[in-house]
Amino acid sequence: MPETLIKVDLATSPYENERIHNRWHPDIPMACWVEPGDDFRVETYDWTGGQIKNDDDAADVRDVDLNQVHFLSGPIGVKGAEPGDLLVVDILDIGAVENSLWGFNGFFSKNNGGGFLTEHFPEAQKSIWDFHGMFTSSRHVPGVKYAGLIHPGLIGCLPDRKMLEAWNAREKALFDTDPERVPALATLPNGDETAHMGKLKGEARDKAAAEGARTVPPREHGGNCDIKDLSRGSKIYFPVYVDGAGLSMGDLHFSQGDGEITFCGAIEMAGWLHIKVSLLKGGMAKYGIRNPIFRPSPITPRYDDYLIFEGISVDEAGKQHYLDVHIAYRQACLNAIEYLTKFGYSRAQAYAILGTAPVQGHISGVVDIPNACATLWLPTDIFEFDIMPGSDGPTKFLDGSVSVPLAPDL
Amino acid sequence: MPETLIKVDLATSPYENERIHNRWHPDIPMACWVEPGDDFRVETYDWTGGQIKNDDDAADVRDVDLNQVHFLSGPIGVKGAEPGDLLVVDILDIGAVENSLWGFNGFFSKNNGGGFLTEHFPEAQKSIWDFHGMFTSSRHVPGVKYAGLIHPGLIGCLPDRKMLEAWNAREKALFDTDPERVPALATLPNGDETAHMGKLKGEARDKAAAEGARTVPPREHGGNCDIKDLSRGSKIYFPVYVDGAGLSMGDLHFSQGDGEITFCGAIEMAGWLHIKVSLLKGGMAKYGIRNPIFRPSPITPRYDDYLIFEGISVDEAGKQHYLDVHIAYRQACLNAIEYLTKFGYSRAQAYAILGTAPVQGHISGVVDIPNACATLWLPTDIFEFDIMPGSDGPTKFLDGSVSVPLAPDL
Amino acid sequence: MPETLIKVDLATSPYENERIHNRWHPDIPMACWVEPGDDFRVETYDWTGGQIKNDDDAADVRDVDLNQVHFLSGPIGVKGAEPGDLLVVDILDIGAVENSLWGFNGFFSKNNGGGFLTEHFPEAQKSIWDFHGMFTSSRHVPGVKYAGLIHPGLIGCLPDRKMLEAWNAREKALFDTDPERVPALATLPNGDETAHMGKLKGEARDKAAAEGARTVPPREHGGNCDIKDLSRGSKIYFPVYVDGAGLSMGDLHFSQGDGEITFCGAIEMAGWLHIKVSLLKGGMAKYGIRNPIFRPSPITPRYDDYLIFEGISVDEAGKQHYLDVHIAYRQACLNAIEYLTKFGYSRAQAYAILGTAPVQGHISGVVDIPNACATLWLPTDIFEFDIMPGSDGPTKFLDGSVSVPLAPDL
Amino acid sequence: MPETLIKVDLATSPYENERIHNRWHPDIPMACWVEPGDDFRVETYDWTGGQIKNDDDAADVRDVDLNQVHFLSGPIGVKGAEPGDLLVVDILDIGAVENSLWGFNGFFSKNNGGGFLTEHFPEAQKSIWDFHGMFTSSRHVPGVKYAGLIHPGLIGCLPDRKMLEAWNAREKALFDTDPERVPALATLPNGDETAHMGKLKGEARDKAAAEGARTVPPREHGGNCDIKDLSRGSKIYFPVYVDGAGLSMGDLHFSQGDGEITFCGAIEMAGWLHIKVSLLKGGMAKYGIRNPIFRPSPITPRYDDYLIFEGISVDEAGKQHYLDVHIAYRQACLNAIEYLTKFGYSRAQAYAILGTAPVQGHISGVVDIPNACATLWLPTDIFEFDIMPGSDGPTKFLDGSVSVPLAPDL
Repeated sequence: MPETLIKVDLATSPYENERIHNRWHPDIPMACWVEPGDDFRVETYDWTGGQIKNDDDAADVRDVDLNQVHFLSGPIGVKGAEPGDLLVVDILDIGAVENSLWGFNGFFSKNNGGGFLTEHFPEAQKSIWDFHGMFTSSRHVPGVKYAGLIHPGLIGCLPDRKMLEAWNAREKALFDTDPERVPALATLPNGDETAHMGKLKGEARDKAAAEGARTVPPREHGGNCDIKDLSRGSKIYFPVYVDGAGLSMGDLHFSQGDGEITFCGAIEMAGWLHIKVSLLKGGMAKYGIRNPIFRPSPITPRYDDYLIFEGISVDEAGKQHYLDVHIAYRQACLNAIEYLTKFGYSRAQAYAILGTAPVQGHISGVVDIPNACATLWLPTDIFEFDIMPGSDGPTKFLDGSVSVPLAPDL
Repeated sequence: MPETLIKVDLATSPYENERIHNRWHPDIPMACWVEPGDDFRVETYDWTGGQIKNDDDAADVRDVDLNQVHFLSGPIGVKGAEPGDLLVVDILDIGAVENSLWGFNGFFSKNNGGGFLTEHFPEAQKSIWDFHGMFTSSRHVPGVKYAGLIHPGLIGCLPDRKMLEAWNAREKALFDTDPERVPALATLPNGDETAHMGKLKGEARDKAAAEGARTVPPREHGGNCDIKDLSRGSKIYFPVYVDGAGLSMGDLHFSQGDGEITFCGAIEMAGWLHIKVSLLKGGMAKYGIRNPIFRPSPITPRYDDYLIFEGISVDEAGKQHYLDVHIAYRQACLNAIEYLTKFGYSRAQAYAILGTAPVQGHISGVVDIPNACATLWLPTDIFEFDIMPGSDGPTKFLDGSVSVPLAPDL
Repeated sequence: MPETLIKVDLATSPYENERIHNRWHPDIPMACWVEPGDDFRVETYDWTGGQIKNDDDAADVRDVDLNQVHFLSGPIGVKGAEPGDLLVVDILDIGAVENSLWGFNGFFSKNNGGGFLTEHFPEAQKSIWDFHGMFTSSRHVPGVKYAGLIHPGLIGCLPDRKMLEAWNAREKALFDTDPERVPALATLPNGDETAHMGKLKGEARDKAAAEGARTVPPREHGGNCDIKDLSRGSKIYFPVYVDGAGLSMGDLHFSQGDGEITFCGAIEMAGWLHIKVSLLKGGMAKYGIRNPIFRPSPITPRYDDYLIFEGISVDEAGKQHYLDVHIAYRQACLNAIEYLTKFGYSRAQAYAILGTAPVQGHISGVVDIPNACATLWLPTDIFEFDIMPGSDGPTKFLDGSVSVPLAPDL
Repeated sequence: MPETLIKVDLATSPYENERIHNRWHPDIPMACWVEPGDDFRVETYDWTGGQIKNDDDAADVRDVDLNQVHFLSGPIGVKGAEPGDLLVVDILDIGAVENSLWGFNGFFSKNNGGGFLTEHFPEAQKSIWDFHGMFTSSRHVPGVKYAGLIHPGLIGCLPDRKMLEAWNAREKALFDTDPERVPALATLPNGDETAHMGKLKGEARDKAAAEGARTVPPREHGGNCDIKDLSRGSKIYFPVYVDGAGLSMGDLHFSQGDGEITFCGAIEMAGWLHIKVSLLKGGMAKYGIRNPIFRPSPITPRYDDYLIFEGISVDEAGKQHYLDVHIAYRQACLNAIEYLTKFGYSRAQAYAILGTAPVQGHISGVVDIPNACATLWLPTDIFEFDIMPGSDGPTKFLDGSVSVPLAPDL
């Protein structure tokens, strides 16, 4: 058994665990140290630190405190790592917690987080997904079963001070263009009590908390990329900015589609990673690396029969946008949702499928002025019935008796 | 041998061929009629109608007349097709012209077309790709060879008048927000002599030409989607808007990456399609179809070992954008280009590879405010050498003696 | 267009074409010469030289003259090739003849050729398969459609005298153990008029014909391997035994299952190959090569959802055999045939599917005394209906109105 | 957490565990009962019950007591199962024991078990494979790493009395043809103390032990099929012969090649399965099922770039055999072993790779009289270096300093 370097007790608050943090800052002390070549296990909370329960009430999704996210395990110091190196991480395996074999997916309220289709799903909803060995299914979304494409939504190394300052400056500049917007244009550092700075205490903690970047966006170091293909078995090359690298990780997903379009978001779970670390000295300059690169896993679910939906950058109101892939992908997703309703799914169930199944989202065309074209690839083998079009019309396999719990805004 | 319904003589101008057109308009007469269930062949010009030559001079790319594009073969009338139906198209095969076994890829001048990375490659460049059976390689881009993922960049049915008007209105509204922009925000109808309206002649031709939508953007009917996976062997369900459907196609590509980021664009070629058509009556309403949907081919090149590059929506100047997938994908592409230079490629060669090889572009994260995350999947098996990172540093396999012809703006 | 080095006129007898031969002998003169690095096309007859017709009568299969097979195109001399080299062959493409877009599959009479299941199908039967672009279907076997996995059943270099003598000696030794057996244990050289020795004439021809090895079995040089995966796009390394190598090929198949269990056998067709040749000097010793090795194509049909049937080495009479994979595979095939009858197929149709579709045959266990275990992998996506087992029992999709023509022995 | 119905303590003898057995007999009492639809875990010994140790001495492989194998967990009774039903088993997951993350591979002495290449490797050898999350590597076989294709080598239902008698009769008939042969032609029932009949005790135990079929060969019920693709995630349909079905399983493999050619055999391990059972009533007759059928897992290692070796049914002495796939596959394996020595592997290391890596063994041609053709598919991505042929000759990546422990016969 590999050693578990960071342990997590789901019954206690992540704030009580000094090997957890929820902000990015170079002053956060290493939670532990390893040698290049070591392999070890790391346990993690779910990204909310246990705020969401395995029940049929979406009130917890509606009322989630997003100032707390994401609870990360780390930072792990790697001896000999120096700025400019690449930290090579082999994800040898990932799993759920043995006595907690379930995950959640949700849509945040537009007033508290929102999401990709928040205009269409403005209120909080939640679905619970049970794990059956390598597979998952949901009591709230019948007719689908997937093999897990298990991955960390968030993983990366500590920034140095210069990078942190660049992050904070550019995000504040964007935020300031529309400070009242809901959802906010960016989540800026806040020095309040929700910041968990690991072992850092007292004045040093307060100073770092006031500067510490939020964990929400992906950035140069990787971070919250939510790339479904960065799954167990993959090999990742991370830029190193500080001595010791300071690798942190969390936000495990049992399965997710490209875009993580439901925001809350994938099938979120607590769990553990088994990883191995090594160094590629001076790798950033040698290979011209600015953001992480990676090689995907040789073991991923083989769902390769697809029904593909197209979307273009004309929005729901018919307005033409210029090569906007975000809008094009939204249209492709809305097209797929509409299609799935013909087989008996509610729109919320269809949206939950797109957020949790290993759907692919491709940037298919970005030069044919003025329309971007995006495609959503829906794997057909995840359904218990045939969803291909046919001359005998769509069959309503579902009778609508099951729904995704909704918690209206208060 | 299936019958060839539309023939093309590459030695004569497409304007002399009445079964060719280059605008979308419901008044364009059917070039020919078929029955549901028929299969047949259709020949096509390359998208520019022969403007680009198999030589080592990019002047033709620089000087291309984009008012002419795209030359389409059709419209083909399908008996019994009515508005609201789905036209089911099986692409049984696609090939190049036997005595023209080559294609071209290019970057347009920023002043005449531009492209995805036009700020980085503002001048015209061109690479020629030779076809060797199912494979292609280029005398201008050494060290790579791909199996063709042959597909039509452009295929779809005629719009009805109402849809045409919607297109023209929304695109003009966008154009009018910045009419002087280069490249233009949209290419609007122009009634000049470059419009080829098929069999339509005289006054009727002039009227339709003045209204006919340009073929550049993808739209609800499909059209210029440039989806690499809509390849030979795929089955596509197209919305029908007019009696007879009016299916047209062209802009064949021997190979292309997601996004067609070089704009001129894929490996462009003249060739033929062998297709079969059938009808799914009333299918648009039955299945809730607004844009085409399709099932990909069972025969596509198996390039499934990837090196994946990430990009986030912070632009080259360090400016933060809000969930902008277009910018994120641009960063991922620039990261890949930078990486490939370490192995000896020029930046133009690396860009040409990303435009022509079956790279994937995924919308990996679009909810983690404010950064979108896009990934570029570079298939490693297309290279004659190993491009994975290693502790012994990158090897310059290429000596720089070969380059991509460039034609400076005059 | 690559040059066509060997042309074939399907309307004339292969015996009139000096670039065709149907025996292996080192004295057969090269039909033509090429340089290493050349690519070119080669046309071929179907393996029987046109004996089987596109009709609904199996009499031609029953009456086939097997002394004539296989008609090969070649030998092609490669300048500089010497014994001990490896001849590297890239199969760039393969196709059918444009005005002959069909192929045949058959079961030989037990009295004239037999086959893998000849005890179960002792009389001649034939099915015709039409090619629709990259796909094939049969008017005699409804409900299935496959993408072609096109390959040469037979390809290899000329043996030298020593190897030829070894072949003849060992095969005669086997034949002599039961000379009266029907089908024969081996097909030995016969110097009669059915031998086609290419350009070789007169006394030299007669002498070589009397010694020339039949083309039926695969041998050290490759030859009639009938390996479905040696398909277009693959790269093969052939042992070279004579100066110039002398590469010959033929017996094209549009599609075939592992084992080619119907013997007549795959979907047999006339057609052409586009290949490239190069040399790996001294490669046999360097790499320890005795039989050809190859790398499969990056473009093959993606039929990867299978229903798998097991078979063990207990024969139909219940007799136990010792680790006999041949018998185990026969049981797996018989199990699959029985299964398919539950969906409405006749046994002959089911057998034709196993012979022509890209089924896999795996040697699953060969050490668990006394039973070998073989598995037959039946791709489920080739069927127009669902063939998985289910609680609602098998549905007879076919009404038995279509059958495979049978020609009783006279 | 699913309930663990059968627990195993690796520190105690399997003979002390009443939920274990090592013979097939209808009188063995059910170890436990479940309902259709239940999912649960089952722990297993390794097939030898712990006889082989994690060390560098092959004496334990040489001296193994094969009368004891295989120790199976079960039989599990499924309520409502009746003869003629199909028992549907979903393998939801399989894993190793947490404090025993290693497995073994070995070649038995020709005098005690033998194996596929026992004439070439007549003495006992052993390699130990460590598990690193989803991957394995060996201190005795450098340069390779695989993702696990974890599967039970042995799984199936209890025979009824009639089937048991048929097994015993046919195997004895074979055995009697050469009773002195080493290795034996078949392993017959022996009533001695090595038989473990589960809960059955006293006279009843002795009677059943004297009749109980050995677990070595695969048979109609499945049993010791050693099919690598019957891996976690697959769905299997087993014939039911007795009331309650009586499902037993064991002989877990972390990874194995087609044929399990090393006999001792795969990477053998102790571990657990998480399975779900359900019934397809009357399924044997409905679907014509005689042997199990199955659908492979959607999650298997993607090793799909292969170097393929051919073999024909001419044996090492040059003797011609008639369509003998066993011999043809042996030649393909020997060819691959010879090839791998060129890169620095010992023959024993190469043999261990073929036995443990996910190599495929295909029955490529079985009708081309007199030679069968078999192919061995060696996945190239399991090697840390490039094993493709090239003009610069093979490189000896290994220096021969590491070897596979050998224990000479005493």
